[in-house]
Amino acid sequence: MSSEWTGDETVASLGEAETLSRILPLMPAARDTLLGPGDDAALVSAPDGRFVVTTDLMVEGPDFRRAWSEPHDLGWKAAASNLSDVAAMGARPTALVVALAAPTSTPIAVLEGIARGLSDGCAAMAPGAGVVGGDLSTAPVLMIAVTAFGDLGGRAAVTRSGARAGDVVAVSGVLGDSGRGLDLLFRLAVDHEGEPDARLGSELRGRDAGVRWHLAPTPPVGDGVRAAEAGATAMLDLSDGLALDATRLARASGVVIALDSSSLGDDPHAALSGGEDHSLLATFPSGTPLPGGFRPIGTVVPREHGAQEHAHPVTLDGIPLAQVPGWDPYAWSPEAR
Amino acid sequence: MSSEWTGDETVASLGEAETLSRILPLMPAARDTLLGPGDDAALVSAPDGRFVVTTDLMVEGPDFRRAWSEPHDLGWKAAASNLSDVAAMGARPTALVVALAAPTSTPIAVLEGIARGLSDGCAAMAPGAGVVGGDLSTAPVLMIAVTAFGDLGGRAAVTRSGARAGDVVAVSGVLGDSGRGLDLLFRLAVDHEGEPDARLGSELRGRDAGVRWHLAPTPPVGDGVRAAEAGATAMLDLSDGLALDATRLARASGVVIALDSSSLGDDPHAALSGGEDHSLLATFPSGTPLPGGFRPIGTVVPREHGAQEHAHPVTLDGIPLAQVPGWDPYAWSPEAR
Repeated sequence: MSSEWTGDETVASLGEAETLSRILPLMPAARDTLLGPGDDAALVSAPDGRFVVTTDLMVEGPDFRRAWSEPHDLGWKAAASNLSDVAAMGARPTALVVALAAPTSTPIAVLEGIARGLSDGCAAMAPGAGVVGGDLSTAPVLMIAVTAFGDLGGRAAVTRSGARAGDVVAVSGVLGDSGRGLDLLFRLAVDHEGEPDARLGSELRGRDAGVRWHLAPTPPVGDGVRAAEAGATAMLDLSDGLALDATRLARASGVVIALDSSSLGDDPHAALSGGEDHSLLATFPSGTPLPGGFRPIGTVVPREHGAQEHAHPVTLDGIPLAQVPGWDPYAWSPEAR
Repeated sequence: MSSEWTGDETVASLGEAETLSRILPLMPAARDTLLGPGDDAALVSAPDGRFVVTTDLMVEGPDFRRAWSEPHDLGWKAAASNLSDVAAMGARPTALVVALAAPTSTPIAVLEGIARGLSDGCAAMAPGAGVVGGDLSTAPVLMIAVTAFGDLGGRAAVTRSGARAGDVVAVSGVLGDSGRGLDLLFRLAVDHEGEPDARLGSELRGRDAGVRWHLAPTPPVGDGVRAAEAGATAMLDLSDGLALDATRLARASGVVIALDSSSLGDDPHAALSGGEDHSLLATFPSGTPLPGGFRPIGTVVPREHGAQEHAHPVTLDGIPLAQVPGWDPYAWSPEAR
């Protein structure tokens, strides 16, 4: 556990105004801001008369453990998961707002670390995007709710429903790394009672790229606009595992997605079932030169005439995936384990 | 406590997909939605090439108690506090996104009640505004983070910094009612150990308009656009009490706000110190016919030559408010009481 979690100067000892004055200067500035933090609301440019919006919540316990995550990781990951959703529409991220609830005993250094993580994450994944507003409250556990915005530059949004038979299925980013990292943490970085252990987590992080990806992923945000410009017919962010997310895309498009196991790396099961990679899954018309980091992993084929709408619409080497492993925050919460 | 808090059918027993399928149809539709819930992100119209955005967090404990609030209240109040911030910029609310974290034991009826409250609140305060997206997670307490958007219709945003000497200071909405309601709840609707009591709270709610306003306020959202169209020079939402919020407006504008106690009702202290009214405080050029529900409560006067920037810039009947009572979520949290 990083020493930031144990400082003496807490949000309660500083109060809201001083807390804000400490963290606001650390937040990334947004290029498209017309009016930033400090009023009842912010004003953001939407050059083509529309804006893309997504929201994603991270809660201590189900979504992260303070023994394993540093504050900087939390800000970075909150940025990553939201920026990736904006990218998956084919949009350029422009701005974020951040609502944060923390126990009153939380050291100010934790909030400063989160702010720096948001800033560094935006700079690395979506230069020019920044934080235009936020809210603070108290809670028994740390919670970060980010809402992110994007600009389509006059293009149509790339939804989940546009895949057509004959399209190439492609992915940009890792497959299964985040899930493998989380599995490793739960197997190797816990104490005798199964509770997350900070020292073991820190050691594991130094040795394993999957653990690092799980704690602070760097999804290929810029590939969202590249895919849209290259003519992607459908796209989504891989947050719940390839099997479940490909099923969503296939159902929304009324097609079958035929995956090729040889393109899924050494561990196709992990690639199919691991959540939180935040890679981009997209379909492109056959013959399209794949942009950025996209690589082919399968093809789109027609749904058989008479096939039920709820038949399993994803195949692996021609065999229907009979059961779709995926991630359900309620079914998988620590309380339910 | 409403019976919705104690149902057998919980979010854990239903899982995320079924929970979403139950609450999404109850959410209000937004007229300006180009693409609604169901994809990685939503797409909202921003007719004049800009959008107003604000975010506000409600956490069980510091922000509400389940003994006193019904689920419908929580959705309604989450809508009210955000719509009011949009209105305070002079904008018409268009859309909201909702991030919700709940204990896995939460009955689905609670989430359905929150969704209906959001829907009814939007219909009452900002017809045409609706929910375009959201996220679900689990947490030890219930938490609702709403982000709301608005359209300025080509006008400049009405900020806090435009008040000029000679302007009339006016308010639309109640003054101090919410704070009086909260005080009553803490004095009269608690058990022998000081814990919130559902039956006493329900009785008190039936008898007292301030309690009802605190639990489910109906701020004058439409008066935001009316004030902007009438030429308001500055405006903000009264969320932390008139004294503190008037101080913010005065400091941002570099002026002094001279309040007249005879216009603050029977209990000027409550009007000055009570938070969460979500009324609109605005300044208008002298002689402007006040629009909607606005009524005069004072005037803007110049800051004395040589006065320190941090001198108290709000006076009551000519006497500087030496100490600004207000509401700080950290200083006032239950842990700190």
